[in-house]
Amino acid sequence: MLKDESPSRTELSELGEFGLIDRLTSDMKILNKSTVKSVGDDAAVIDHGGKLTLVAKDLLIEGVHFDMSYTPLKHLGYKAAAVNISDIAAMNGKATQLLVGISVSNRYSVEALDELYAGMRLACKKYNVDLVGGDTTASVSGLFISVTVVGEVEAGKQVYRNSAKENDLICVTGDLGAAYMGLLVLQREKEVYKANPAMQPELEGYDYVLERQLKPEPRTDIIELLQKAGIKPTSMIDISDGLASEVLHISKDSNLGCRIYEEKIPIDVVTADVAAEFKIDTTTAAMNGGEDYELLFTVNINDLEKVKAIKGVSVIGHMTSKEEGEYLVSSGGSMYPIMAQGFEHLK
Amino acid sequence: MLKDESPSRTELSELGEFGLIDRLTSDMKILNKSTVKSVGDDAAVIDHGGKLTLVAKDLLIEGVHFDMSYTPLKHLGYKAAAVNISDIAAMNGKATQLLVGISVSNRYSVEALDELYAGMRLACKKYNVDLVGGDTTASVSGLFISVTVVGEVEAGKQVYRNSAKENDLICVTGDLGAAYMGLLVLQREKEVYKANPAMQPELEGYDYVLERQLKPEPRTDIIELLQKAGIKPTSMIDISDGLASEVLHISKDSNLGCRIYEEKIPIDVVTADVAAEFKIDTTTAAMNGGEDYELLFTVNINDLEKVKAIKGVSVIGHMTSKEEGEYLVSSGGSMYPIMAQGFEHLK
Repeated sequence: MLKDESPSRTELSELGEFGLIDRLTSDMKILNKSTVKSVGDDAAVIDHGGKLTLVAKDLLIEGVHFDMSYTPLKHLGYKAAAVNISDIAAMNGKATQLLVGISVSNRYSVEALDELYAGMRLACKKYNVDLVGGDTTASVSGLFISVTVVGEVEAGKQVYRNSAKENDLICVTGDLGAAYMGLLVLQREKEVYKANPAMQPELEGYDYVLERQLKPEPRTDIIELLQKAGIKPTSMIDISDGLASEVLHISKDSNLGCRIYEEKIPIDVVTADVAAEFKIDTTTAAMNGGEDYELLFTVNINDLEKVKAIKGVSVIGHMTSKEEGEYLVSSGGSMYPIMAQGFEHLK
Repeated sequence: MLKDESPSRTELSELGEFGLIDRLTSDMKILNKSTVKSVGDDAAVIDHGGKLTLVAKDLLIEGVHFDMSYTPLKHLGYKAAAVNISDIAAMNGKATQLLVGISVSNRYSVEALDELYAGMRLACKKYNVDLVGGDTTASVSGLFISVTVVGEVEAGKQVYRNSAKENDLICVTGDLGAAYMGLLVLQREKEVYKANPAMQPELEGYDYVLERQLKPEPRTDIIELLQKAGIKPTSMIDISDGLASEVLHISKDSNLGCRIYEEKIPIDVVTADVAAEFKIDTTTAAMNGGEDYELLFTVNINDLEKVKAIKGVSVIGHMTSKEEGEYLVSSGGSMYPIMAQGFEHLK
């Protein structure tokens, strides 16, 4: 038979998710002048004349990104759409169309897919996005969701990860760490249920963190508010893998260092309560928890007053020269090197 | 726990692939004026000013769309890109960018993914397409490939499935049925290998049908030739599921009937030889085999001479009124109703 006889074998775990993407996509020469931005940001940027077209895609895999035992299908559909819309917001753009590919085993019924699509439609309606493509195929096992989002942005208004400048202020929207706490609550209830299926779930009082985990909302509102305030961020990314991983993306891609001030990181009171219950440090949850889908961006220091006037934005640090490195400054004044320990699914 | 308690259960197989897509995507109101064409064609059409943007996506699932025991990874990568580029050709457009999402179990090595990407890059280079997005995540088992393709077409030049007119000529590029014969050869060799791993594969003389199965080429050349000849097809689709399924798409979407003349269906001599060996009728292979990735299109009868002058295009029938139904006219003059028996993966 036709065989793939590779001379050597490197395990995927040796490279990790980002190392692997770098390896597979490096050295690619751009052939089309319509390709404005290729691999390496939240979305690709394409110029077919008129407005720029933004395209991004995300995969959601059963057993890796979600656990069917505690994820309602309607929420899953909503989240699949929301995280893609968030990618377009992170480019300073507006999502306009969505294409969905679903691969599903016969363990799922038509009604189950109805629920999944109901969630996607709900998110599309809320964020004014058209669902323009659907493809459903069989899978041998499990549920795989592949969503492609298309967005638009006026030429020159797109914001990348690699364009922060020294001394720029680092800003974040909303609050962080809640989605991770929601995940821990759901995982705990799953264990309780497995031990004793007759037990009733204890989810009361956890609404906020559960909603943050199961039904994240992309911060398209902030994109509009920034525009109204006349602020163009100097760089931007959305927080899918945790604050640490994302601020490192901006720093490394911009060839800079950064300081994040621990006491400035916005944490909701419910998140703090749940973190205390799980004996987890809230800073750890914010830095490494991930899935908050808030926006992390930098602005010129001259925009300080304007950005502080926007409700729901916190200034949490600033960019430094590359030589100064990337550090978290604790409430006590100690400096901790920032390391990415987020959702690297392949490690 | 949070449970999805559906009141009733409909099996996916009851609806089939197309029925399911119809159910999930029906009744969707378009919210953005940039959405020119939504669900229901080879690609969505988006107008952000300037040229129109075409977006399509395809999933390739291990165990459903390909069998790793006889599919070299480099070929698989090439095919994943090629079938997407074909979708854009089927809209009368030119593919410009590709985004790739791969979900892979740790059974695969980094070198295996290198091979897969090498194939995708090769196709991208050949068809002048930029690979602008890559995302790789873990899977619990198997290999899932999700490719999104972006293309462009001048406004007004895009061609849909639903715009054929009565008496239009039905044309097809290249020859049909070969990819299916290639699949049968590979499946036979797999069985031989399973029975006796020491046996050498007998693939000699089957090069053409194997290449058609493993390394299909999108017919972007025909799009250019049609343009040079001043022909705008009245409708078009690419042949992924077999001639029967595709001509029914054009007929039903255009609210027409059709006649296909069996003796006009282009069959390569190698395909005919292999079909004889497998005791399969070549017409059956062409009608229901699928994966040829040739273009099926209709032209106005006034373009007959022009279209006949294009090498590699066969005129195989014509559109009729809806009332006349969809029929294959045999060499002997008998009429057989055309039914889709192609690659409906969910059935």
